[in-house]
Amino acid sequence: MNAPVLTKNLPFDAAKLDALMDDAGIDALVVTSKHNVQYLLGGYRFFFFDQMDAIGISRYLPVLIYPKGRPEDALYVGNVMEGYEHELGRFWTPTVKTTAWGSLDATREAVAHLKKLGNSVRRIAVETAFMPVDAHAALKADLPDMEISDALFVLERLRAKKTPAELAYLRTASELVVESMLTVFSGAKPGDTKQDLARRLEVEEVNRELHFDYCLTTAGTSLNRAPSAQKLAKGDIISLDSGGNYHGYIGDLCRMGIIGEPDAELIELLGAVDEIQQAARKPVKPGGTGNQIYASAEAVLNASPFRATIRDFTAHGMGLVSHEAPRLSDRAPMKYPGYDKDRPLEEGMVLSIETTMNHPKRGFIKIEDTIAVTADGWEGFGDTGRGWNRSKA
Amino acid sequence: MNAPVLTKNLPFDAAKLDALMDDAGIDALVVTSKHNVQYLLGGYRFFFFDQMDAIGISRYLPVLIYPKGRPEDALYVGNVMEGYEHELGRFWTPTVKTTAWGSLDATREAVAHLKKLGNSVRRIAVETAFMPVDAHAALKADLPDMEISDALFVLERLRAKKTPAELAYLRTASELVVESMLTVFSGAKPGDTKQDLARRLEVEEVNRELHFDYCLTTAGTSLNRAPSAQKLAKGDIISLDSGGNYHGYIGDLCRMGIIGEPDAELIELLGAVDEIQQAARKPVKPGGTGNQIYASAEAVLNASPFRATIRDFTAHGMGLVSHEAPRLSDRAPMKYPGYDKDRPLEEGMVLSIETTMNHPKRGFIKIEDTIAVTADGWEGFGDTGRGWNRSKA
Repeated sequence: MNAPVLTKNLPFDAAKLDALMDDAGIDALVVTSKHNVQYLLGGYRFFFFDQMDAIGISRYLPVLIYPKGRPEDALYVGNVMEGYEHELGRFWTPTVKTTAWGSLDATREAVAHLKKLGNSVRRIAVETAFMPVDAHAALKADLPDMEISDALFVLERLRAKKTPAELAYLRTASELVVESMLTVFSGAKPGDTKQDLARRLEVEEVNRELHFDYCLTTAGTSLNRAPSAQKLAKGDIISLDSGGNYHGYIGDLCRMGIIGEPDAELIELLGAVDEIQQAARKPVKPGGTGNQIYASAEAVLNASPFRATIRDFTAHGMGLVSHEAPRLSDRAPMKYPGYDKDRPLEEGMVLSIETTMNHPKRGFIKIEDTIAVTADGWEGFGDTGRGWNRSKA
Repeated sequence: MNAPVLTKNLPFDAAKLDALMDDAGIDALVVTSKHNVQYLLGGYRFFFFDQMDAIGISRYLPVLIYPKGRPEDALYVGNVMEGYEHELGRFWTPTVKTTAWGSLDATREAVAHLKKLGNSVRRIAVETAFMPVDAHAALKADLPDMEISDALFVLERLRAKKTPAELAYLRTASELVVESMLTVFSGAKPGDTKQDLARRLEVEEVNRELHFDYCLTTAGTSLNRAPSAQKLAKGDIISLDSGGNYHGYIGDLCRMGIIGEPDAELIELLGAVDEIQQAARKPVKPGGTGNQIYASAEAVLNASPFRATIRDFTAHGMGLVSHEAPRLSDRAPMKYPGYDKDRPLEEGMVLSIETTMNHPKRGFIKIEDTIAVTADGWEGFGDTGRGWNRSKA
């Protein structure tokens, strides 16, 4: 339909994507989630709808169509206001339609394009959790013979190994989240509420050019992690577990603070958590596996005198999504299969490793780290502030 | 199924909702958008997924079921982490399940509950733009005889007239957005990029306890509204059009700035835009209509010596969604019907009124205001800074 595009100039590994699509029996991808549209557009995310979806009588629905092996026939359908971004040359797809205000008009453009692609596209894959039912119904009505499958695994496998640019974003996100946390711990004082802490963390993150995602927080001996009107008291331990993203790439770490000085038991408890975290890192290198990570961590966990207080140990891939490939274990609490547990880790994969202690007397103690697989081992992103961070207020 | 709940204690007008459902032939609502879940839960929005949806192999999908006239049989299905919020007593629904990690397990809980409701629930309404196709397919598979319609109009009509608490949120949001803009105009200087301005506006909004949504911005004679590397120069005019929300309620206004002093023509042009804006306010009162607002504004617009440069005039309802009921005109650029254009405005409705000039030589000039319908007329929220705001940097 259009002049050929050089595959080598695409912002993703098109050869890998084509092979994944081939394996899955997919002729064309119809991508509608913000994170996967961002990935396939080389980092582009429309600023207007970055934080929300609803508008008018419908919602924002970006649609990217990628026919296997035919980038020259790719389409991007955006909102009318993305015409400004198109003027600035932000889209590599040869066809761009910035005509939509909702899910149905966006889908109509997608359907028209799929029809033009002809008989070579008989099997499409959509993101079933990110395609609204009205869009899907319109697609089915106009293309009744199209086979439709789920694009999730192809797309998350494509994203699993990060590029140097992505690694830099994830490193920055992690460092800035930890910096923000250390600032909040430093200023925490008796009488502050958990809501105050969450609010301050948001401000600290945004002042560092992150987009704030969330803050889970505990204080004192409570195991409740929702920001609330609970007030901090002298001697309270505090956890901050926050996600903040840098250009869409998530920094997600957990650090511990205290208003006062930790006693010997608290130091021992955090040490026990850290020991599990350190054991989990040991097998991390190209060729290591999720099974090895879990085995190493669980050996320490099971031998720990505090075993009964450890609520869970988890390791999972992360990037544009806070839990993504590689999927390292069937024991992950989130009910997805550990389909990568035996597969070799690759350089450029990024893992989140987390150990959570629910201590019946001392409260919630957790460390969550971000570990990138490097050529010969691993690198901890934002790997500071892992002990007890004292309030200085 | 459960102990009766007193309707008068619900956080929304249940009698109105029941009547709307009755008119639409709906036995139960299955609500899955963040904004409508927030509304029906009395302001609650789960902090963890406020800014994102994707997690694991699926996404966050809150589900609220409201059977007509039977609040005692209402259900809320949340993410596992919303157990913390449940402990804090945040949910009025008698049944709460905080068991889900994705769209399918959330849907399974909803289906089980619908089955328990029995034969009295044969017609449900879902949010077709906010229910993923996988959730819908699961619903259809398990409840093949259920009639399914779209809940959008019932829910947006329910939300159209704001409560005093909602009006207070919208007033605060509007005032803080304008304050943030005036601070950014004040500090704008030659050499700053439009990206710098958007970034600073985000920081100013977050420092004022808003959640930043977006910033459209122009500079100089360009009509392009995307934040970009375009640099400001001495004498440039600047527009800032931003959405920031306060507890979910959107402040969305546009103000103009300048690096230097406006000349006579600029003052005249902005004055012409303001004249249309003021004309649009005149019919705003209980009993006034969208048709009257458009007629009043368009009379001035059509008589304006700058008519050819006015790109559009728009008025629309706003609240939790940036364009919502009342729908005041068929001429709105967003392709939705003006089904409220003849209906009387009611006290507590909130309108966004916007006039945009694309001046071929001077650039983009726009004012967008937020106007609440009061008992005897209107109130402008954040109704300051409507002239040329000079840089002081």
